[in-house]
Amino acid sequence: MKIYQQAVRLTARQRGFHLITSEVVRAVPQIAEIQTGICQVFIQHTSASLTVNENADPTVRKDFEMYFNKAVPENDPDYLHDDEGSDDMPAHLKAAMLGFSVMIPISNGRLALGTWQGIYLCEHRNHGGNRNLMITAWGE
Amino acid sequence: MKIYQQAVRLTARQRGFHLITSEVVRAVPQIAEIQTGICQVFIQHTSASLTVNENADPTVRKDFEMYFNKAVPENDPDYLHDDEGSDDMPAHLKAAMLGFSVMIPISNGRLALGTWQGIYLCEHRNHGGNRNLMITAWGE
Amino acid sequence: MKIYQQAVRLTARQRGFHLITSEVVRAVPQIAEIQTGICQVFIQHTSASLTVNENADPTVRKDFEMYFNKAVPENDPDYLHDDEGSDDMPAHLKAAMLGFSVMIPISNGRLALGTWQGIYLCEHRNHGGNRNLMITAWGE
Repeated sequence: MKIYQQAVRLTARQRGFHLITSEVVRAVPQIAEIQTGICQVFIQHTSASLTVNENADPTVRKDFEMYFNKAVPENDPDYLHDDEGSDDMPAHLKAAMLGFSVMIPISNGRLALGTWQGIYLCEHRNHGGNRNLMITAWGE
Repeated sequence: MKIYQQAVRLTARQRGFHLITSEVVRAVPQIAEIQTGICQVFIQHTSASLTVNENADPTVRKDFEMYFNKAVPENDPDYLHDDEGSDDMPAHLKAAMLGFSVMIPISNGRLALGTWQGIYLCEHRNHGGNRNLMITAWGE
Repeated sequence: MKIYQQAVRLTARQRGFHLITSEVVRAVPQIAEIQTGICQVFIQHTSASLTVNENADPTVRKDFEMYFNKAVPENDPDYLHDDEGSDDMPAHLKAAMLGFSVMIPISNGRLALGTWQGIYLCEHRNHGGNRNLMITAWGE
């Protein structure tokens, strides 16, 4: 078994859901050397998140933004943590619901994603800035 | 360290939450050869998901279906992605909330699940069809 | 590649969200021996959960408790599974939304958490009692 790790800085995205599969794959060319393994992508932030979902129709990603904005409202008067703006506490909650890491099997030197699966960066802040990932891949 | 990987096709289930622990364990008999390790189960779809929850009382799984149907409504007029039916976009959202993979420790040749834990296949489509899993187990 | 595993019993916490990063790190000193790897923390229960989120301001954790209590109401008359109290079925649902395991990269003998990230134990029961974790770390 071998293991590789690579820190990646994603440039700032606007608030919303963004496909980053190709950036992840480019950042860790050693995936091609793994016949059987796993690739983990971890985001080192608490107001942006990662998930896997539909990779084809951009309206899916728009509907994600719409849905999570309804499900986690801004300006709830019950929020105690509101110093950093109305988008801050909802961003923490959305990030916890969606998750901060994805784990994808590697088969024959490639991510074993389904046909319609892609990796999403979910940017929950209005001005989130660059986002740091740590990608780790292992196997044999 | 050794690593095993097995593709598994689950036969079509009806919409709802289903226990699949025994199918997973049967599909990867090599788990018995791992003293200390991890088993990942990954679903290669974006409208069905995987989680771990209560394995005894079937009403828990019915309540999961009821709750997520309320939390992620069908026919929201704000959905843009609606060509594939009213259950489609909610299925993508539910899948993202519940997750597309589970990671379970292996101890002494067995999944180290708690007494009341089982693996759920969460089928969010009315007619989802067969579902493909990729199971990867590693350890020593 | 080497792999370590450690069972940990957390003492009972009150309902709410609690930082447990330092307990996890203390329980697995072998993390210091791993240059590149992963640490998984798995909770062997279905009514408490684990996530990673903001580690500084305690009001974030209070807002988590407030939000999830609104998002997953108690005493919904549609619940079928209600023998164990009004907090029981909501606890199962919250646990599924937040997740039962966290996977954190290890770099240079330390968890590669972002500056503001900490591991949360999310106790969803009024009287959850002790909680068992299984921590597994691997790498080289």
